[in-house]
Amino acid sequence: MRAGVNYTPSHGWFHSWLELDLDRVARDLDQVASLGVDHVRIFPLWPVVQPNRTLVRERALDDVVAVVDVAARAGLDVSVDAVQGHLSSFDFVPSWLESWHRRNLFTDPDVVASTAEYVRRLSLAVGGRPNLLGVTVGNELNQFAGPPHPTPHEVDAEGASAWLRAVTTAARAGLQEARGDSGGPLPWVTHAMYDAAWYDDRQPFGPAHAADHGDATITHSWVFNGAAQLAGPLGPGSVRHGEWLLQLAAAWNADPARPNWLQEVGSPTNVVPVADAPDFVEATLRHAAEVPHLWGVTWWCSHDVSRSLADFPDLEHDLGLFTADNEPKPTGRRFAEVVAELRDRPEPVPSPDAVVLDDVDAGGRPVAGHRASCAPGGATALAWLRLAERTGRGPQVVLASRLDEPGHLASRGVRALHRVTGGASVPLEVAHPATMP
Amino acid sequence: MRAGVNYTPSHGWFHSWLELDLDRVARDLDQVASLGVDHVRIFPLWPVVQPNRTLVRERALDDVVAVVDVAARAGLDVSVDAVQGHLSSFDFVPSWLESWHRRNLFTDPDVVASTAEYVRRLSLAVGGRPNLLGVTVGNELNQFAGPPHPTPHEVDAEGASAWLRAVTTAARAGLQEARGDSGGPLPWVTHAMYDAAWYDDRQPFGPAHAADHGDATITHSWVFNGAAQLAGPLGPGSVRHGEWLLQLAAAWNADPARPNWLQEVGSPTNVVPVADAPDFVEATLRHAAEVPHLWGVTWWCSHDVSRSLADFPDLEHDLGLFTADNEPKPTGRRFAEVVAELRDRPEPVPSPDAVVLDDVDAGGRPVAGHRASCAPGGATALAWLRLAERTGRGPQVVLASRLDEPGHLASRGVRALHRVTGGASVPLEVAHPATMP
Repeated sequence: MRAGVNYTPSHGWFHSWLELDLDRVARDLDQVASLGVDHVRIFPLWPVVQPNRTLVRERALDDVVAVVDVAARAGLDVSVDAVQGHLSSFDFVPSWLESWHRRNLFTDPDVVASTAEYVRRLSLAVGGRPNLLGVTVGNELNQFAGPPHPTPHEVDAEGASAWLRAVTTAARAGLQEARGDSGGPLPWVTHAMYDAAWYDDRQPFGPAHAADHGDATITHSWVFNGAAQLAGPLGPGSVRHGEWLLQLAAAWNADPARPNWLQEVGSPTNVVPVADAPDFVEATLRHAAEVPHLWGVTWWCSHDVSRSLADFPDLEHDLGLFTADNEPKPTGRRFAEVVAELRDRPEPVPSPDAVVLDDVDAGGRPVAGHRASCAPGGATALAWLRLAERTGRGPQVVLASRLDEPGHLASRGVRALHRVTGGASVPLEVAHPATMP
Repeated sequence: MRAGVNYTPSHGWFHSWLELDLDRVARDLDQVASLGVDHVRIFPLWPVVQPNRTLVRERALDDVVAVVDVAARAGLDVSVDAVQGHLSSFDFVPSWLESWHRRNLFTDPDVVASTAEYVRRLSLAVGGRPNLLGVTVGNELNQFAGPPHPTPHEVDAEGASAWLRAVTTAARAGLQEARGDSGGPLPWVTHAMYDAAWYDDRQPFGPAHAADHGDATITHSWVFNGAAQLAGPLGPGSVRHGEWLLQLAAAWNADPARPNWLQEVGSPTNVVPVADAPDFVEATLRHAAEVPHLWGVTWWCSHDVSRSLADFPDLEHDLGLFTADNEPKPTGRRFAEVVAELRDRPEPVPSPDAVVLDDVDAGGRPVAGHRASCAPGGATALAWLRLAERTGRGPQVVLASRLDEPGHLASRGVRALHRVTGGASVPLEVAHPATMP
């Protein structure tokens, strides 16, 4: 199991790209490396790199490469997110896409072409670095695709697929160009969505997009989405939420061996009290580690956001494994201890039990609301939790639409299917930190 | 008459603040100085300087100061605009004021306080420079205050006044702190509006705001607002448009000696063909120079926007007095010739003729639509133009509401009043380049 940290610079947050201080980055990343992790995920800001639609700033790309190289000196691999896009309640959208110039982020041909070109150029810039894990298209860009975003760029599922094809193709082209004829495998290309993709039937980006695009299936686990509210900070529904998302994601993978990456998981103080946070960290990691084909877990995040910065949801000031002064926190120490133990764990044997997600009915017709049934408190999610607690092991999830697929159950080691009973789920408004009390 | 140029960096446009190259700035400003001008107006980008509400970046302020100093070495004074805000069809609004964090730019107390703090810090940073002319609050921020802005921050006239008091007070505080006990007069503080303030009765920022706030009354003349469409590129309504705005502005000044600054005027190719542009420049300057109490004219702009940058209204690529390669253009040469002649012209004697603007009726009640009557094609604007052509001199403008003010006419040298006859004006949609074909 790979273990890493989402890197939030200790000083100036991501605005520090405006005046990159590599000594500071080195100090931050040396601390991160001291946790015993093997990688970080980093986040350039889109308007800084591509301030005009046809201007991808070479110097900004150099800055990203420089951070990748500093990470290498700290012994860390790096995953680079391209289009930010969105971070910690703030949207960063270049002026050429706002106000008088507003066009649809996902469907306007000029915008898609220019976004793809940005992704390609960034991928080309970092593609030759030996410690590059890969490129993620951007952080939770599906937040922009529908409600509750205040000004969504509307797109349908087919449009979302087309957009994902365009940007992942661009990333691969950049990586390929950087690697040339070197022959080795390319760093991977992934894309990341917030959990409305799994839980909100209205969200145009959905589970199939997670499973069908990119080289791994990515999940982001945030228990302020209702999970911890329902289960309590250390209840099973809270500390198994990351595990649940990983198992749910695995159900959608066409290839059972496709890697699953819990790319973001954190301990938000609005639902997990500070005193409970180390236990939350430990239990979350241990549960996630039981999921087969887990590539790794990347904690959110490295450093607290300084309280000298305004307008963040309060919880963002306490998500770090280190303080803004670069001091380790109890969560950081616990994270390091548990990761040291789990890193070399043997690949887990798949659970023989599987809960069936009724994505289609007995006649093969799509079931409305099947995503909501997976949200915290939904019928499928609750059935999975009950079975996990009864057997002491998080079961797998199988799609009803795949039950008749030859070899599907066998290839995943499923021996007992559990059908979900109970009433229909009601759609859950997937909470967004910026809108939370 | 002071003569200057709005400085649009030749390379990377205003995005060049992201990687300030002082050698390049020096080359640009040496060229500007070669025109024989005495000042430039410069434009930091708001999100670059204040990326978080409570983070005004010291290094970004240093960059602004460095440009002021480079200008000094070129022999140029500098006027600094603070809040951009808006430039050439692009809005630059920091992430802490958009999307999930959207709050009213003009009325939200936290936003106003933080904006004022930015203005204060910038004023403090540049305030000690001997070649600082002054600080303008921001470029045409009234564009954000109402339609046709796509997502206006609505405010009423009283709110606009309160906002202007807050930000001009902040600018003065910064300048005062920088100057300390040195005793001399402070650099001036001004604010700038686009011409809907004069022409569109729905625009919350109006003529009284121009005349009552700041240390000079500022006008921006853009003949794509209907003036050149009605008059032809070189017709009187086009080449006298800057003069007309200056005379109209003077009518609103409580103190007849208050300086008037034509802070922006340019020759837009969508309505003034390139071949006519030098004559447009010359006639515009000569007419403006006939207005009493004119402080100066600042041409828009120094350098063409490179065609390597996308999404600009086409005209923006040809507004420069220099090409993006720093070569002088015919407009630049003509501008230099005329400025050399006008700089030391004697202060003009006020025209004895004045057109009455019926801002109130005979009973002293406000007249609806009096701003529209001043727009190109409006009754008052046409009456002024007819009189200008008949007498060969642009008349003054007097407000009906001030006709009975003791000494008003005498202090302005008015000896003949001309009442406007003719039908009511219809509101004119003041054209915005981003919405133009």
